[in-house]
Parts: sequence; structure tokens; C-alpha cells
Amino acid sequence: MAISTRSFTVNGKTYTPPARPVVVICLDGSADEYLDITLAHDRMPNLKQMTLAGYRGMVRGALPSFTNVNNSSIVTGVTPAVHGICGNFFFDTDKQEEVMMNSAAYLRSETILAAAANAGRKVAVVTAKEKLRDILSHKMTGIAFSAEKANQAQEATHGIGNVESVLGLPTPAIYSADASLFVLRAGVALIEKGMADFLYLSLTDYMQHTYAPEDGPSLAFYEAIDHELGRLLAAGAVIGATADHGMNAKQKADGTPNVLYIETMLTEKFGDGFRVICPITDPYVKHHGALGSYVAVHVPENVSEGDVAAWLQAQPGITEVHNRDMAVHLLEQPADRIADLVVLSARDVVVGRTPAHHDLTALDSGLRSHGGRYEEMVPLLISHPLTPAYRSKAGGDPRNFDVFDFTVNGTTLN
Amino acid sequence: MAISTRSFTVNGKTYTPPARPVVVICLDGSADEYLDITLAHDRMPNLKQMTLAGYRGMVRGALPSFTNVNNSSIVTGVTPAVHGICGNFFFDTDKQEEVMMNSAAYLRSETILAAAANAGRKVAVVTAKEKLRDILSHKMTGIAFSAEKANQAQEATHGIGNVESVLGLPTPAIYSADASLFVLRAGVALIEKGMADFLYLSLTDYMQHTYAPEDGPSLAFYEAIDHELGRLLAAGAVIGATADHGMNAKQKADGTPNVLYIETMLTEKFGDGFRVICPITDPYVKHHGALGSYVAVHVPENVSEGDVAAWLQAQPGITEVHNRDMAVHLLEQPADRIADLVVLSARDVVVGRTPAHHDLTALDSGLRSHGGRYEEMVPLLISHPLTPAYRSKAGGDPRNFDVFDFTVNGTTLN
Repeated sequence: MAISTRSFTVNGKTYTPPARPVVVICLDGSADEYLDITLAHDRMPNLKQMTLAGYRGMVRGALPSFTNVNNSSIVTGVTPAVHGICGNFFFDTDKQEEVMMNSAAYLRSETILAAAANAGRKVAVVTAKEKLRDILSHKMTGIAFSAEKANQAQEATHGIGNVESVLGLPTPAIYSADASLFVLRAGVALIEKGMADFLYLSLTDYMQHTYAPEDGPSLAFYEAIDHELGRLLAAGAVIGATADHGMNAKQKADGTPNVLYIETMLTEKFGDGFRVICPITDPYVKHHGALGSYVAVHVPENVSEGDVAAWLQAQPGITEVHNRDMAVHLLEQPADRIADLVVLSARDVVVGRTPAHHDLTALDSGLRSHGGRYEEMVPLLISHPLTPAYRSKAGGDPRNFDVFDFTVNGTTLN
Repeated sequence: MAISTRSFTVNGKTYTPPARPVVVICLDGSADEYLDITLAHDRMPNLKQMTLAGYRGMVRGALPSFTNVNNSSIVTGVTPAVHGICGNFFFDTDKQEEVMMNSAAYLRSETILAAAANAGRKVAVVTAKEKLRDILSHKMTGIAFSAEKANQAQEATHGIGNVESVLGLPTPAIYSADASLFVLRAGVALIEKGMADFLYLSLTDYMQHTYAPEDGPSLAFYEAIDHELGRLLAAGAVIGATADHGMNAKQKADGTPNVLYIETMLTEKFGDGFRVICPITDPYVKHHGALGSYVAVHVPENVSEGDVAAWLQAQPGITEVHNRDMAVHLLEQPADRIADLVVLSARDVVVGRTPAHHDLTALDSGLRSHGGRYEEMVPLLISHPLTPAYRSKAGGDPRNFDVFDFTVNGTTLN
């Protein structure tokens, strides 16, 4: 059956896919330095070829620079203000409960994936972490499963069963390079078997949290990613790749984590009643200990929000403090799901709640993390030449969540 | 005569140079993308070799991300708060005059270059733009001249005369690739002739203001830079290279400049009396029309500074507004040389004064500029392996003005 090229419109943007497999990849945690160093070692020949034949540049991600936020933006093409996912974790004021924000119940926008399926594409979503599957497959007809729980996928609920035998891939450990490589290999297999022609492949950043760009395991990881890019290109795919966020070491000179415990600091200064939410919090303990460079602060009623903001802004290591209105205006946040204040920290600093809230013993190495302004800029790679209009767009202020637009609409394949 | 390895201390840091030529290069306006694309074309083999043998990573520049600010930081190793140079141009409240800030009279710190000369090194400064020469050669015994006025250098005042015949290099046009390449070629010649063993080579960003990273003339320019890096390495130099700032297109979708004229906007909103200073202003009209992503605002006495700040912060395209205290705290500014407010703009937006203050007809292409947060992160390259201590430092929050420290103290040559 021919691949559908029927246009579809979602969240105000029209997509007209080419008659070949479309693959968008979220290279979770891929600060540009990871590509730079591995390329210098001549270990990413396919990425190099994509750069030469297509496009490589930098794009601005959504804030906070976290996984769920940016994956949601990528599959919807809109900001967190529109789609509503502003963290992995938040304080639901309706429920008066701190909850994971990994349910599609919190998603306020249609996805490009669901719309593509409705327009006749065979859509597949493969994500490393199970936590993302529900959001990414929202209202979507097609295949959606995670590397983490690949062996639990069922035809009725995931659009595919017996993944291990059908695709010839064993379910990987989640804290591994294989968790991400599985996602890419599954993508290749789905295309080769004619099971999908419109794919979103979302990796995990365990490797980037654990290794610096020049570390041997990281070089080997990116080389292995590149090998799968080559197989996707050989299968005729047009590929768009970006990242949800960058990654920086967040350590002191002695190698210990560089943490500001914001709830502790505020309680000491202003008294009890503060609630600090770390929206990086997720079920994966070996990545970051729930420490990132962005927290949300609920200020008790008897304390002046302005006083708290001014005091926080003057603390070393804090780079930005915004009240709700400014977080909506400057950071594209949904007003009803953020706290009174949001706080961003420096390139080498993370913000946390209290020492008791963060278990750093599970980390496999020093602390590397993200969430703030210094992990906002990420690479964009497109495998095929951009049209003049999209080349011009790339020269403005393109976003990582324009990646479907660039990949589907932006190349000379159209 | 043997090369001196005597230690020297300046601005609180001790430098112990190796017994070989030390060359620090400021690749003016070199956003990392310029390196990425040229490397993908296999046109920077020496930079690639430096990455493999030494170090390549990202470092944080000084703000505002302008040339004089960052060159001053690089040669002193300290922030603008310490050395006092916070723009190319400012309103001198003592003189009640708007003046260029390119005189060493404004520099408040000793330089590494002068200290190296005092410790017995043969120091040479070569800068593309004459505007930097006075600051960079402050109290320095040695050679200091610009590409722009190479043929006017005199032994008595510049430490070298007859540059064209001594070095075999013609004085280049300032609006050219050659203006920068001359600087590197002069550095090679000075080492080869035994005239210098401790060099600071500061290029100009005419090419980056004029061309995007993937444009043919830019690729050829970086290839030519790489050729000179190879000659410096062949001459036995240890090389540290960084940039003063990055570079972004600042245009609307139709290719016209994306400008907010802040003094015009404030006058319309709050009335007369505002003075907006564009610290990017310099004598070179073809680069940017005095439009960058950072301006300083002097607020008239009858208007509330807080009201102005709040209003500005809410305008689309404005990303940060800080009063004097916060500009000192967050942006490392000298309190007595900035205005009441400083204003930063978005990746694709520049801020100006009034339309009459900016002549854009001289630009050789669309508007590409810098000055704000999105031009803060720049590459750092070191030609030789870093020691474990400096590798650790590179993994923290290193600055572009640590480049002398990394190059002189940080490699296994020491």
C-alpha cells in the first residue's frame, strides 16, 4: 500500500508528509557537545552526512528543560502554555496532591501523531521510558510501546504484541545504553517490516546523566545511535532529530553535588508553610535524584511573595525568579499548573527541596542534570535539504518542537 | 634565549607558563555552529586534532556579550565588575557624555599580558580592530598592533615598525576575512621569527555578522583559520581558543531586522527624558548598525524606575530587565558604569535607541548580531591534554576568560 501523503492540520499547523517514512527522534539529554566530541572521533558518519546533505543547527527548547515538557511540545508542536504539561511532577491544586504529570489526562492538545494516523499514516511511537507512553499515544491509532516494558505490550492496548519476537529485540534494562538503542532499533524494524511509516522515537538520558561527552561509554553510545541513523536512512526515511534538553555537570570543585535546598532555605528565612516542587521528579532514581535547575515554590499566605522573590533572586546560584504572570509570559507556562514562583539556577547548580527529599546514593556517577536556562538550547538535525523557506525559518528562532514541521514540511522532498 | 617559565600573579591568579610559545586566540563572534558546520565539511583538520588531543567544550562568556567586554575579561581573567569595561560605548556620568569605552583609562585591572612581559616573556598582541589595541596593550612591554592599522605601527609606540615588510604581510581591509586572518598570520610570523613567545590574537567578527555558518564564504574563512592553527601548532605553540560572544540572526521572517527601539517605546509610553545607550556601538558601521541584544536605560527622575522595568519586562521580545543592583549581582556589571536599567532581548531580537540612531543601510547582508543571553555560551578549545584538575574545572562552569588559565596552567605540558 502506498504511503499516504494526505495533509492534516493540528494545533493550527498543517502537515503534508512526503511519500516515505518520516522519523522524528528525541535524543533525550543530547547537549550539542555530545555530538561535537563523537563527531570529532569520526564515530558518527551518518550524522555528519545528515549535516552535509541536510541541516544542523541549534534550536530553543521549551522550559523548564525537562523530558515530559519537551516531549509533549514536540508531539503537539506547541508550548507548555498550550499543551499543559509543565513538568514530570506537580502540585495539583484541585486534588491538593503532588502527582506525576505523565497521564494524558493532563494533556490539553491534540498530537501530531494522532492526526497523522487519522490522515492514513501508519504511526508508531517507541519511547524508552514507560512514563511517556500515555501522553505520546494520546487518542492515537497505531503502535505505542516503551523499551522499558516492551515485553508487556499487547496488541489490544499497544497496537503490537510479542514485541521481542516480532521485532527480534529483547527488552532492555532501563538504566542502560540499550534502553535508548532499543528504541531506534525498534524503529528500524517497524519500517523494514512495513508496520509503520510515521514514527516518533524518544530515547532516555540515563547515559548523559551518567557520562560526560568525552567519556568512553558516551562515545560508544553515540556511535551506536549513529549506526541506527544509518539504517533508518537506508530504509528510505526522512529523519528529524532534536533533544528535549541539554545536560550540564552540577557539581562543586570537589565533585560533590552543587545543591541549593530551596524549601530548607525559605523555611529558615521566612518560617514554615512553603511547598517546593521539583518538577524533574520521576520514577527513575539513578538519573538525577530529583535534582534539576528549576523548581516551583508555593508561598504561604502569610508571607509576601515579592519579598520571597527578591530574597531568592539575590542568592548566589539562583539565576531567575519569576512570579506566575512572568512565568506565563516569559517561560510559556500554563498559569493554573505552576506555583506562585518559579526558580531557575546556574549552569553548575541544581535546586532541590530539603536534603531529606533527595536520595543521591542511587546515582551511578557525579551529578549531571538539566531543567534550567543552560539546558535550553539543543541541536536540530534534518536528514534532507531544507527548502529556502525553512532554511530561513532555521535562521530565526526555531524551536525544538518545530521538529515535525521541519521534517514533514521543510525538506525538498515535498 | 630560553623561553621564560617564571610564574607571575595577576588579579589573584598565578600563571606558570610552559617553555614553549603560548597563544591565546579570541575567535570573535564564533558561535559554536560555525565550528560544527565547517568541521562537518572536513575543512578544519587542525581544530579536529586539537579536539582529539586536547579539549573542546562550551564556556560562559561575560555579559553583555560584546567584544570589548569579553576581550577585557580574557586578558585580565576577571569579570566586568572588576575590570570595569562593560561595553564598547557608555554614558560617562562624570563627563555627562556618551563616549567610546576603548581607552585603557577605563580599565581597572592589570592584564595577564603585561604581567607575562614583566615575568620575562616576549609578549605580542595582535588585534584586528584598532579599537581594542589600547586596552589590550595597557602597561605592557612588547609588541601590540592592529591589522586595521598595521602599516602605521611604530617601534617606539607599538614595539614593532615596518610590519608589512618585517612580517611579509600587507595591511588588510577591515571589512574582510583577511582582517582576521592577518592577525593569525602575524602571530605565526612573530613566533617563527623569535619575536614573541606569549601571544594574544584577537580577530574580528565582520564575517560572522555577514554570513551564516553554512554560507560558503564562512566555510572558507574557518578553513583558512584552521590552516593558521596548523602553522601555530607546527611552530610548537600551545593554543587556547575561545570567543568573545556568539552570533544569531536578528531578523523577521521577511528578512528585515527585528528591532525594538527602546528609547522610542519609552518616550511614547512614559514621556521625554529617557537616554538609551547601545553599548555595542563602535566605529565599524558594516557589522551591526549599533544594534545588539542589550541596552542600558537611564530613567528620568520624574518616572518610576520600577514601573519602567515592569513595563519593559512585559514587552514581547524582551527577555530580561534588571536594575542596577541586579545587574551587578547577576550580570557582573560595574555599578558606577551602567545605567538605571539594563535590558536584554531574545535570540532573534535586537534592541536599539530610536530609528534615527541606527543606520542599517551600510550592512553587507541581513542583520546578525549579539549582546544578550543567547550569545553568552561560546566554545573553548585547548590544543593539548588537560590535567585532571583542569578537566574537572572544564566540567563545572568555566568561563571564556579562564582561557589563559587553561592554556598556561591547565595542560599536561606543565
